[in-house]
Amino acid sequence: MDRGRLEAFSDGVFAVAITLLALNLAVAGPGDHNGSLAHQLSEQWAAYVAYLISFFTVGIIWVNHHAMLSNVVRVTRTLLFLNLVLLLFVVLVPVATGTVGDYLAHGGFDAKLAVAMYGVVLVGMSVGFSSMLEWSLGEGRTRVPVPPDKRWAARVRFMSGGLVYLLIVAIAFVNAQVALGLSGLVAVYYIFESTPTLEKPQEPEESQKSAESAKPRD
Amino acid sequence: MDRGRLEAFSDGVFAVAITLLALNLAVAGPGDHNGSLAHQLSEQWAAYVAYLISFFTVGIIWVNHHAMLSNVVRVTRTLLFLNLVLLLFVVLVPVATGTVGDYLAHGGFDAKLAVAMYGVVLVGMSVGFSSMLEWSLGEGRTRVPVPPDKRWAARVRFMSGGLVYLLIVAIAFVNAQVALGLSGLVAVYYIFESTPTLEKPQEPEESQKSAESAKPRD
Amino acid sequence: MDRGRLEAFSDGVFAVAITLLALNLAVAGPGDHNGSLAHQLSEQWAAYVAYLISFFTVGIIWVNHHAMLSNVVRVTRTLLFLNLVLLLFVVLVPVATGTVGDYLAHGGFDAKLAVAMYGVVLVGMSVGFSSMLEWSLGEGRTRVPVPPDKRWAARVRFMSGGLVYLLIVAIAFVNAQVALGLSGLVAVYYIFESTPTLEKPQEPEESQKSAESAKPRD
Amino acid sequence: MDRGRLEAFSDGVFAVAITLLALNLAVAGPGDHNGSLAHQLSEQWAAYVAYLISFFTVGIIWVNHHAMLSNVVRVTRTLLFLNLVLLLFVVLVPVATGTVGDYLAHGGFDAKLAVAMYGVVLVGMSVGFSSMLEWSLGEGRTRVPVPPDKRWAARVRFMSGGLVYLLIVAIAFVNAQVALGLSGLVAVYYIFESTPTLEKPQEPEESQKSAESAKPRD
Repeated sequence: MDRGRLEAFSDGVFAVAITLLALNLAVAGPGDHNGSLAHQLSEQWAAYVAYLISFFTVGIIWVNHHAMLSNVVRVTRTLLFLNLVLLLFVVLVPVATGTVGDYLAHGGFDAKLAVAMYGVVLVGMSVGFSSMLEWSLGEGRTRVPVPPDKRWAARVRFMSGGLVYLLIVAIAFVNAQVALGLSGLVAVYYIFESTPTLEKPQEPEESQKSAESAKPRD
Repeated sequence: MDRGRLEAFSDGVFAVAITLLALNLAVAGPGDHNGSLAHQLSEQWAAYVAYLISFFTVGIIWVNHHAMLSNVVRVTRTLLFLNLVLLLFVVLVPVATGTVGDYLAHGGFDAKLAVAMYGVVLVGMSVGFSSMLEWSLGEGRTRVPVPPDKRWAARVRFMSGGLVYLLIVAIAFVNAQVALGLSGLVAVYYIFESTPTLEKPQEPEESQKSAESAKPRD
Repeated sequence: MDRGRLEAFSDGVFAVAITLLALNLAVAGPGDHNGSLAHQLSEQWAAYVAYLISFFTVGIIWVNHHAMLSNVVRVTRTLLFLNLVLLLFVVLVPVATGTVGDYLAHGGFDAKLAVAMYGVVLVGMSVGFSSMLEWSLGEGRTRVPVPPDKRWAARVRFMSGGLVYLLIVAIAFVNAQVALGLSGLVAVYYIFESTPTLEKPQEPEESQKSAESAKPRD
Repeated sequence: MDRGRLEAFSDGVFAVAITLLALNLAVAGPGDHNGSLAHQLSEQWAAYVAYLISFFTVGIIWVNHHAMLSNVVRVTRTLLFLNLVLLLFVVLVPVATGTVGDYLAHGGFDAKLAVAMYGVVLVGMSVGFSSMLEWSLGEGRTRVPVPPDKRWAARVRFMSGGLVYLLIVAIAFVNAQVALGLSGLVAVYYIFESTPTLEKPQEPEESQKSAESAKPRD
């Protein structure tokens, strides 16, 4: 199978999932028992926070998903199914985010359970991604060979995310808001920690073309 | 018509359908009559099972859809409409899955009817796929000729799936849970039964490129 | 702008719209006042009919949209906005279809109004498509020149569809079911009336490649 | 990262967001307390207006997004995240549009707040787009160098849109309908103000090809 169609399908799933996230912010409309719009919006603070965190979490996974695939030599049936496992959890993010938005402000055990469930989905997404990564690091599977130290850097980088998500599941049962905040910190970390461990280096002809157009027009 | 746009459109439909599947897992929110979150989640077991089965069933159809198209010489109007028939049933999967999730746990005739309807959608999907396959096996329609024995292997492989789905419709009226479980077994079978009967063999230049990057850097 | 991205965006819109169509078939779930599943499904007959008609109507527009664009020399800003007008109506199809499904069986003026609204959306879609077609038939806008008689054939073919849809709006106020049935006939007509008036002829190298792989392996 | 996949993902998000817009026009169905269909449709006038404005606003952003990216030399991690910021607001448009449609006709402070929120989403979208533009205007980042005066024209063109949207947020608290109408005027302005400041000039071979097929067949 060619990389192109795997990417097209995955991009579609990522795009739909990230767009559905926003539907959790819909208000109930001007019904008799719904309260004023200002009231409804103010009660949704947890939904806004959860939306922001999920949006960037899915966005980052998408960025890294691309970087990893761009260096893979050949898309095999195994990679296809590991990819399906990743997507199995990606598509759960909108629902899990909505549940957090609905329950966090209500406190109690339900708030804790909602964030724990959210953490479980993030753990699943992380396991899916790490499995694809581990597969791609196998001998002869990357276009540009990845030296052993870089392999370990990539593993540590992505698996540590999975471990933090696992920790978040546990913390959720102690303090749901702290656990959710921690998942936001993971997203911020991955946005700024930009070591491109995985990405295929630019093709010579490509970088040359860039250099040419970038040349001052003397 | 070029293959590219047929694939892009189909991939979009597959991607949206597979993402909408997860929306069936949404909980009702913390309303007065909804019960605790833990209670709601525990009542959704049928929805989780149905989600898993449908996700992988659609995922597999997508994988095989790609494999088949990759070997087709030319996209004709007939193929386009056979593809539309396949997609007609693919987009019904989220609704059928949601109905199973809603009714299975309630038992009675409604549970049986829900799984039977689900089976009917899977039969339709299977008929759509088998029609495309049958068309593609016609003389001169594949880039790489498919020898007669492989044709029969492909036919048997995919049509047997359709027959099992037909059986599932019947079994649903006896025992809904067994019928649903059987559709899960079909998905598991297709995940592991990986004979790539359909896929176009790798292009020489492509495999050579792979081989080169895979070469140990002595 | 390159054709590729216009097609990708349009394909995405077509794919989402066609998938959302199926959501209109969702049943209410096993609530106290919803009646049995069998009862709910039997009350949905209008929704099934509307779903089938809309699915193939959007599918055909997608097929013809592709055929037309494949022959266009250059995507201009004008074409982009004509395309947006087409999509403005394409995305209304799921909602209009759902309204027909909800109201047709209830009869009375609401049923007539629902089908008339549906007809208005189809008229809009048809006007959008015909505008793109008319633009594309302008001097020097097609890769392969379209001879005048073929231009007229294409115009007649697509504009007659728009006129029939306009007629359907009027008929809806007399008999809603007849009007809906007529829109189904239009879809059937376009499926079988396969004169490829618009499509760009196959590139020489492409057809040669096909011919080669199609050659008997003597 | 290659441009192709950034575009595919963004196109997917734009396509889903623009299609979800139409779901805001769904009517409640023939329930006992819903009133006739004609009554429901007539009460939705604000939803139709908001739908039209949002559809073309998102459509224009998509057109300009493409024009800008087509001239960018290389997709960096910074550009990816600026793009995510843009999409963060694009996906909010359906929900914000739905809120305007629900509340505008009801008047009072809620109507003003709904349009103000809508304006905030448009401001965010504008800021996201302007940041990408500003980044792309950096030295050596465009395939074809953009002369300083054109840079300023592009900046003025897009940043003025953002300023008007900011003004709309303020005006919304005085008169919600005027503010919404103003956002419609911005869309109309961008449709007709077609200076292609950003777009990469056509490749020589491309325009030659066009010229050839456009040649009269003497």
